[in-house]
Amino acid sequence: MGKQAIGVVGLAVMGRNLALNIESRGHAVSVYNRSREKTDELIKDCPDRKLVPAYTLEEFVDSLEKPRRILMMVKAGAPTDDTIASLKPLLDKGDILIDGGNTHFTDTIRRNQELAKAGLHFIGTGVSGGEEGALKGPSIMPGGPRDAYDLVAPILTEIAAKAPDGEPCVAYMGPDGAGHFVKMVHNGIEYGDMQLIAESYWVLKQVLGLSNEELGKVYTEWNEGELDSYLIEITSKIFGKKDDETGKDLVDVILDRAAQKGTGKWTSQNALDLGIPLPLITEAVFARVLSSLKDQRVAASKVVTGPQKKAFSGDRAAFVESVRRALYFSKVISYAQGFAQLRSASDEYKWDLDYGTIAKIFRAGCIIRARFLQKITDAYSKEKGIANLLLDPYFNDIATKYQGALRDVVVAAVQAGVAVPAFASAIAYFDGYRSERLPANLVQAQRDFFGAHTFERIDKPGSFHANWS
Amino acid sequence: MGKQAIGVVGLAVMGRNLALNIESRGHAVSVYNRSREKTDELIKDCPDRKLVPAYTLEEFVDSLEKPRRILMMVKAGAPTDDTIASLKPLLDKGDILIDGGNTHFTDTIRRNQELAKAGLHFIGTGVSGGEEGALKGPSIMPGGPRDAYDLVAPILTEIAAKAPDGEPCVAYMGPDGAGHFVKMVHNGIEYGDMQLIAESYWVLKQVLGLSNEELGKVYTEWNEGELDSYLIEITSKIFGKKDDETGKDLVDVILDRAAQKGTGKWTSQNALDLGIPLPLITEAVFARVLSSLKDQRVAASKVVTGPQKKAFSGDRAAFVESVRRALYFSKVISYAQGFAQLRSASDEYKWDLDYGTIAKIFRAGCIIRARFLQKITDAYSKEKGIANLLLDPYFNDIATKYQGALRDVVVAAVQAGVAVPAFASAIAYFDGYRSERLPANLVQAQRDFFGAHTFERIDKPGSFHANWS
Repeated sequence: MGKQAIGVVGLAVMGRNLALNIESRGHAVSVYNRSREKTDELIKDCPDRKLVPAYTLEEFVDSLEKPRRILMMVKAGAPTDDTIASLKPLLDKGDILIDGGNTHFTDTIRRNQELAKAGLHFIGTGVSGGEEGALKGPSIMPGGPRDAYDLVAPILTEIAAKAPDGEPCVAYMGPDGAGHFVKMVHNGIEYGDMQLIAESYWVLKQVLGLSNEELGKVYTEWNEGELDSYLIEITSKIFGKKDDETGKDLVDVILDRAAQKGTGKWTSQNALDLGIPLPLITEAVFARVLSSLKDQRVAASKVVTGPQKKAFSGDRAAFVESVRRALYFSKVISYAQGFAQLRSASDEYKWDLDYGTIAKIFRAGCIIRARFLQKITDAYSKEKGIANLLLDPYFNDIATKYQGALRDVVVAAVQAGVAVPAFASAIAYFDGYRSERLPANLVQAQRDFFGAHTFERIDKPGSFHANWS
Repeated sequence: MGKQAIGVVGLAVMGRNLALNIESRGHAVSVYNRSREKTDELIKDCPDRKLVPAYTLEEFVDSLEKPRRILMMVKAGAPTDDTIASLKPLLDKGDILIDGGNTHFTDTIRRNQELAKAGLHFIGTGVSGGEEGALKGPSIMPGGPRDAYDLVAPILTEIAAKAPDGEPCVAYMGPDGAGHFVKMVHNGIEYGDMQLIAESYWVLKQVLGLSNEELGKVYTEWNEGELDSYLIEITSKIFGKKDDETGKDLVDVILDRAAQKGTGKWTSQNALDLGIPLPLITEAVFARVLSSLKDQRVAASKVVTGPQKKAFSGDRAAFVESVRRALYFSKVISYAQGFAQLRSASDEYKWDLDYGTIAKIFRAGCIIRARFLQKITDAYSKEKGIANLLLDPYFNDIATKYQGALRDVVVAAVQAGVAVPAFASAIAYFDGYRSERLPANLVQAQRDFFGAHTFERIDKPGSFHANWS
């Protein structure tokens, strides 16, 4: 029996679907799972596929062509370390381990170093697109040694999603943790996108009183323009979905307590470490945790009052358009922050990230896929070193045209007592970023007053301390 | 020669001043510094004080009464570990090491465990008040083994600041990392307070066009009412300070690039780990880092435009009062978030924190000292288990009366293009917290749509998944 070009360890839904995706491109795939039930199940469910089950790691490793290519789809953290420790003694120099889990990039950096010492290649790769993406074509963000990437690139390219122009949504991100870092920021951006859409929904519902049917139409229409994206598309469908049990609109039956798996949190914590502003995504993360305090909110709603409800008296269609513009411009601001984080990380960790390519591979397969990503790629094509996307002519033009709408929507929401943390944070960042002067001079004066922390001057370089008392 | 009741290791300004503070209460103090210059300098500067210099750690340890009380005032991180490692073999069971540095509470938890194994007591304590506080009376937040705290409590009580009612600003916070955790949240709150004051300054200057002289008067007046606090007091003084070199108002000569030492960042990162909303302090941290991008801001200000500047046409005095109310109410919201973080941490790390006592020891000595802290103590006296300060009758009354002003100020700032990230975040949190329903149902629907993450229902318990396609 011949050996396989690649094997998959870990046959939960993502690993299973990736194995089937690889197989569907004409490759026989070795498959292994720690408990044999999952392996048997896969083989039973897919008897006609070229899947080669292994029931020990020895058997699995022995079934692979050299250099071996092993895609690990196991839980991030200790289970990944355990899998690596079990595989390591069985491997030969030059073999390639690929971690496709949702791993924190610092773990990937550490594992790269450890495995490089043993002559093994380690590729940490982001895989986005959920179950369906894994099966039919995800967006893939691999990082690690370049020469090892080249050995797995053909297969990754085959299984990746294809953008509307036919380009595969996979590219080499950079050394060690670069791939998992890009995936982390992707997820943070996803948190931001989802919160912005949620706020647009809430303003349309609370301020204008739109019904679910009307909301469905609004998002369907928005999806035909510059907001065209997977998340807007599924939002438009959500409003049309009925609950099988009660016959009500399902969206109204779902409890307003958002869950999370932690990658948004990582993105915010990393931005704090890098010292770059990422307020919008962070507000989105906090909005989820605030939503999860449902019992407290219900209790508070009974004793803490807000503004009196007023009927909307303006032009309703114009306000819907303002919300659309507010959403699009806030999305631009969110991506400007996320890509500034990528830029800062690229400098800090010496990855030499290619931001235009990153936007390109987000165009299909992943959750944040959207027509507007092409504009980001275009911006970096025009000026590779641009410090912030808001400085790009296209995005600056959006800012000029749409900022009034964003201001109007924030004002309407604040006056109506509707919480719009991400919209409000978007306009605050925008106004801060475009301000030559901010009141941080007062903060510096205070710090020097109480702690002799010194300050800089506007008229000459150096550190200064005043005698305040 | 007799032995001393306490010794101080590390004679940079904080250690030196604490040693002098202790000595001023009638105790001879052993002093040691790694490089002997600092020791000699202290002895030379203060020849008449009962300071006993030691030039080796052996000599230092030998000079102390048993159980030995050693206050370490060295840099947080590796230098603290090094100092502990050097002292450890010289100490006897029951000796007490006190870390008064700005240590991350997780390090303090670790050191507590390690030293307990050797029979040594470890107390991690927050010390707030800067150089002057250290010398004359800081606010002190000790955590560690209760019985060890009792052995150092008399000295800590003597050197602590005294609140207006004469109570010393020191109290046992709880086991292991509790003291350093409370200090961390104190610093986060300090970031929030400073950013809110900076935004009030900016709105008064940019929207109303107040001069520095007028600003000085406004803050002086505010300091006589419910905003009475150290930070408002120094703010009022800052606006009156002239630059020695140019004769201009110093505040206008100071560069608007805020620096930070990282404890605000820790507070936000921990809130993200705990899964509790802390958006205001986090916006304050991001506002500092945004201010530090001065070059980018200057470049952006030349190409990115904002709203046209308009003269203020309303009642100026009324608007000043609105800003005061916005500031006070936002401060209430910030403390509500910070104290909710303390509550969450107390549960998570099993510290049994006493929130009323914490507010009490903030009343003097530390940077955030303020009259309003008494209201927090009162709130917890009335209801120890209150989930959020906004539910307390006094703070709820402030919310009712002042939310209109906060909305007006945010609206005016957003319309004028003045960045108010903390004010805007405050009202968003308030409106979110008091909302029985939030649009997180849509977020849950999206997550279930693209990732089968399941959702809860409003009408029955359990996890559900819909067939969306």
